[in-house]
Amino acid sequence: MGSSKVNSALEKIQSPGDLKKIPADELEFLAEEMRSLIIHTVSENGGHLAPNLGVVELTIALHRVFQTPQDHIVWDVGHQSYAHKLLTGRLKSFSTIRKFDGLSGFTLRGESEHDCFGAGHAGTAISSAMGFSSADDLQKKQTHTVAVTGDGSLICGISLEALNNLSCTCKNMILVLNDNKMSISKSIGAIPNYLNHLITGKSYNRFKAFIKMMVQRMPKGKALIGNIQNLEASAKNLFVPGIFFEELGIRYVGPVNGHDLPGLIQTFERVKEFNRPVIVHVITEKGHGCPYALAEPERFHGVGQFIPETGEKRNVSPGKITFSEQFGKTLDRLMAENDKITAVTAAMASGCGLNDAFTERYHDRFFDVGIAEEHAVVFAGGQAAAGLRPVVAIYTTFFQRAFDCIFHDVCLQNLPVVFCADRAGIVEDGPTHHGIYDLAFFRAMPNLSILAPCDEMELDAMLTDVIQNHPSPVMIRYGKGSSGMVADRKHTPLEWGKCEIVRTGTDAVIWTYGKDVTLAWNVAERLASEYHISCGVVNARYLKPFDAESLRAFAAQMPVITLEDHVLTGGLASIASEILASTAHKGLYPFGWDVEKTVLHGSPDALRRAAGLDVEQLSARIHSILTDTVK
Amino acid sequence: MGSSKVNSALEKIQSPGDLKKIPADELEFLAEEMRSLIIHTVSENGGHLAPNLGVVELTIALHRVFQTPQDHIVWDVGHQSYAHKLLTGRLKSFSTIRKFDGLSGFTLRGESEHDCFGAGHAGTAISSAMGFSSADDLQKKQTHTVAVTGDGSLICGISLEALNNLSCTCKNMILVLNDNKMSISKSIGAIPNYLNHLITGKSYNRFKAFIKMMVQRMPKGKALIGNIQNLEASAKNLFVPGIFFEELGIRYVGPVNGHDLPGLIQTFERVKEFNRPVIVHVITEKGHGCPYALAEPERFHGVGQFIPETGEKRNVSPGKITFSEQFGKTLDRLMAENDKITAVTAAMASGCGLNDAFTERYHDRFFDVGIAEEHAVVFAGGQAAAGLRPVVAIYTTFFQRAFDCIFHDVCLQNLPVVFCADRAGIVEDGPTHHGIYDLAFFRAMPNLSILAPCDEMELDAMLTDVIQNHPSPVMIRYGKGSSGMVADRKHTPLEWGKCEIVRTGTDAVIWTYGKDVTLAWNVAERLASEYHISCGVVNARYLKPFDAESLRAFAAQMPVITLEDHVLTGGLASIASEILASTAHKGLYPFGWDVEKTVLHGSPDALRRAAGLDVEQLSARIHSILTDTVK
Repeated sequence: MGSSKVNSALEKIQSPGDLKKIPADELEFLAEEMRSLIIHTVSENGGHLAPNLGVVELTIALHRVFQTPQDHIVWDVGHQSYAHKLLTGRLKSFSTIRKFDGLSGFTLRGESEHDCFGAGHAGTAISSAMGFSSADDLQKKQTHTVAVTGDGSLICGISLEALNNLSCTCKNMILVLNDNKMSISKSIGAIPNYLNHLITGKSYNRFKAFIKMMVQRMPKGKALIGNIQNLEASAKNLFVPGIFFEELGIRYVGPVNGHDLPGLIQTFERVKEFNRPVIVHVITEKGHGCPYALAEPERFHGVGQFIPETGEKRNVSPGKITFSEQFGKTLDRLMAENDKITAVTAAMASGCGLNDAFTERYHDRFFDVGIAEEHAVVFAGGQAAAGLRPVVAIYTTFFQRAFDCIFHDVCLQNLPVVFCADRAGIVEDGPTHHGIYDLAFFRAMPNLSILAPCDEMELDAMLTDVIQNHPSPVMIRYGKGSSGMVADRKHTPLEWGKCEIVRTGTDAVIWTYGKDVTLAWNVAERLASEYHISCGVVNARYLKPFDAESLRAFAAQMPVITLEDHVLTGGLASIASEILASTAHKGLYPFGWDVEKTVLHGSPDALRRAAGLDVEQLSARIHSILTDTVK
Repeated sequence: MGSSKVNSALEKIQSPGDLKKIPADELEFLAEEMRSLIIHTVSENGGHLAPNLGVVELTIALHRVFQTPQDHIVWDVGHQSYAHKLLTGRLKSFSTIRKFDGLSGFTLRGESEHDCFGAGHAGTAISSAMGFSSADDLQKKQTHTVAVTGDGSLICGISLEALNNLSCTCKNMILVLNDNKMSISKSIGAIPNYLNHLITGKSYNRFKAFIKMMVQRMPKGKALIGNIQNLEASAKNLFVPGIFFEELGIRYVGPVNGHDLPGLIQTFERVKEFNRPVIVHVITEKGHGCPYALAEPERFHGVGQFIPETGEKRNVSPGKITFSEQFGKTLDRLMAENDKITAVTAAMASGCGLNDAFTERYHDRFFDVGIAEEHAVVFAGGQAAAGLRPVVAIYTTFFQRAFDCIFHDVCLQNLPVVFCADRAGIVEDGPTHHGIYDLAFFRAMPNLSILAPCDEMELDAMLTDVIQNHPSPVMIRYGKGSSGMVADRKHTPLEWGKCEIVRTGTDAVIWTYGKDVTLAWNVAERLASEYHISCGVVNARYLKPFDAESLRAFAAQMPVITLEDHVLTGGLASIASEILASTAHKGLYPFGWDVEKTVLHGSPDALRRAAGLDVEQLSARIHSILTDTVK
């Protein structure tokens, strides 16, 4: 870190072809340089630290052996692709990673011909790599396809569906299992346990020794020798690490040390010649080469700015409570009062505000199923049918994975499951992670109510009310971080399906929900001070059932502006249109994100500015609309 | 069949408690009676024949050993629950199965306390049963939970996610693997292959014999004996059928003959006492006891009316070509012309119109992945990224399973995958199968175009145009069966994003799409003849991009009625509202299904009548609206 040699080997590499010219004995040094640069850059930009440090040698080995873009390397999730970006022509722009207009923090097809498939959600690499492999076969191309999947992603339903099909579909795909015993937190379930047995490999070694001894001592009848050889062959097939995969028709190779560069390169050179699907089990350390990340890989999975020498956080404002933290606090209180409540998540406990103290206190009622959102939701449905009150906490973008389960296993059956949809609205990570489609997707679900608290106090009140009074499917949707709302604002009590008038006005009214209530308030303030417009603000609170009566009453008197951290299709803009299309009204003006203009990554502030959705531009645009209307 | 003894044993059973009083030697006779009744009833009502015939003995054995509703039996998919219904108080109403206002063809919570969890889509039984099992544990109930899952459902992502979690989550759940080597058609993939190895069991038997011989011949050193015993124990663990499941921490029992009642009962009595998760591998014959169903289990999976003695179809009208058949024909033609096109499905080939001749002709470009919609879509995404033109044919209700994959792996990346969404609109099977939510769900997908052909000729034209001219994500949505459209109707050529005026009128216009164009035509005819109203009909053709300009032009001149085989939320009604909310218009009147009123099962005609959506009621309602408007 900070060494004067930084980038000296790395700078020679404009493309993966250049990597092949580096002398073998310089590769370790290259790895060190890359690791330093990754630590340094992430300490400035934030991002995924520990996963990227874990795959530096693996990435070098893959690009040393395979020839992208002719060969295909598909990175599952894509958040571990920083080293890949450094070796594929993106060294110069690497300092822009995750910034607005900069490199994406994930693989992205538009960014480089070496990113053959984009990602962001886990578990898609094996299936998509199978698509590449089968397409190349059909087109008679002599290429190789490699999927790199973590052990946390392997247990996701898509990965497992793909494994079932792999040996029937593909002649010779390579699946690299990047096993760090973690998804975001510790990997969960029987398959990760099994992988652990493979790594220790004890039973196989014992068996080999025993067979050897037996063969030496036994009478040497000819038939018997034949039998012994048969036995050895079939026993080997069964005892070798990997029987689970071998039974699926996939050749197992491993375990391989993921930080031993020569070993990795040799292994890939060898499996490249296999003419069948193969899994290479690579053991990596999340955070390798960086003491603090290695010590706390979960904390350093995804991070904000920090001091590269120590790992200490930088720019930490004392900070208001976040929605996630409030959710954790409220659920804790409710679970203490009511032993029917369970908490279910899918590898997002701490992200959703369920901290270690919580998961320990409620260890018998807390279920983290790993990256398996579908199972999480159906499992919760079963618990609800059996009389419990499950609360499922998942980021709203990942609820999409369980879409059919929310529909088929919970809503259709009108079961009392509470879905707490965190990270709604625009987030830094980009298009795969924005929670701006969820209302469109979930609004047509039968029996589902959708609530959107404007701040942390309202989240507390809503979750409490739902658990106590509404035994039916409910989604509570809230944004990342804090609402920014003044802590002492007065709330009117909740009334099911009724909006809250937050601010009165006579020239126009902004209907909004969630964190955007704060934004709308600021817009209304600016409209008053800058343009002398008296603009009210209504907190919709309930998207379904919706307070159509109040909306109609407002619309009869003044222009209605809808403002939402959601695409314009399917959210509040659509709701208001459906209500007002057949009613006389003074004008309806929707503000939100355009479904056809992909919102990229970057700070929400930068993204809002670029889309004309910050306070200044919103005020000006509303002023201009109202002026036109008056004309 | 037709024997005078019919129902004599069955009629004694009002609830599962009565089953336990039947002498053991009468159970075979009971099974025979139940089988006759199932054949007879399905021959009248249509329904799932072969799967139900396969599980008669299994169902008797389960209800003989377990006590529902205290114990829980969860049937995966639920279409094999007919025998279960007969034993749980529904004998008298059994003749109404699948009819409007009658019994559901699936398990349904509202129907009986013995249906603890509803289903319709595959793969949810293990997860939901885990919910029951864990809930009973938490509530200190001494009960048993049984999930019955077919081998076709086992390879679905949700089932596999559940298997990974089973041994960590549940103390003692029983998973019955109903292995008939079929999903709807032949089961696909490595796991079904593996199950087949288990059934033959050859290697284990050979191994046992060999070990025995070795032990007899070997020198008898004490340490060696100990070693041999160790070896035997661990070898048994590894060689026994079921290592795959044992590695997942699940005790494997089987294979068990699924038609041997005493054997089944004995097995369940035994595993009931196990204090750990167990899988019971039961081998059943789809169509058992019915020669024609046994001979053609795929054809007799789900059937219409037939002659119970022979299996011949009844009431077969010569029939127009269906949308599915047209899809198969068109795709066949296109694939013959263009070798970049591949066809992908998820255990729905023949249902989607891809018949045996097709799948044989294109065996290298046809991919049936089994019940694994997520993998199907991501795999197609990979193929598209590699330069192919995959066409994915799946029923629209099952596309929900791949929701996030359609979003994340295809639409966000703007990859040219064509989704052919069959069975759109209301179908006989009921709420889990109606394709009336899809537009709401898919309309907010970025880059996705949505097309709805009004008849088979238009499907042909659209699929051809999309493949030739639109390399981006497209969904083509069409109903079950035939459009009913006159074959010689003139089509105006397709223009991307433009509607087709099918009939002109001066008093009002019905905007519609898909099969409902025929319905709207009939409504317009009746409005003219019965009420002297001149009503136009517009075939929207494109839901996204939508022809807003034409809609606005019509709306400025006359009232607009929207009619759709979709819920009123998120489909054409919402599109029209969004467009017209800010425009002067002569009135907007949407007709479709109410998202909050679950549409049950029954013939689409009966369902339409009940909802006021048949020709007579629609005409009368429109007449009444227009009369009120004129006032």
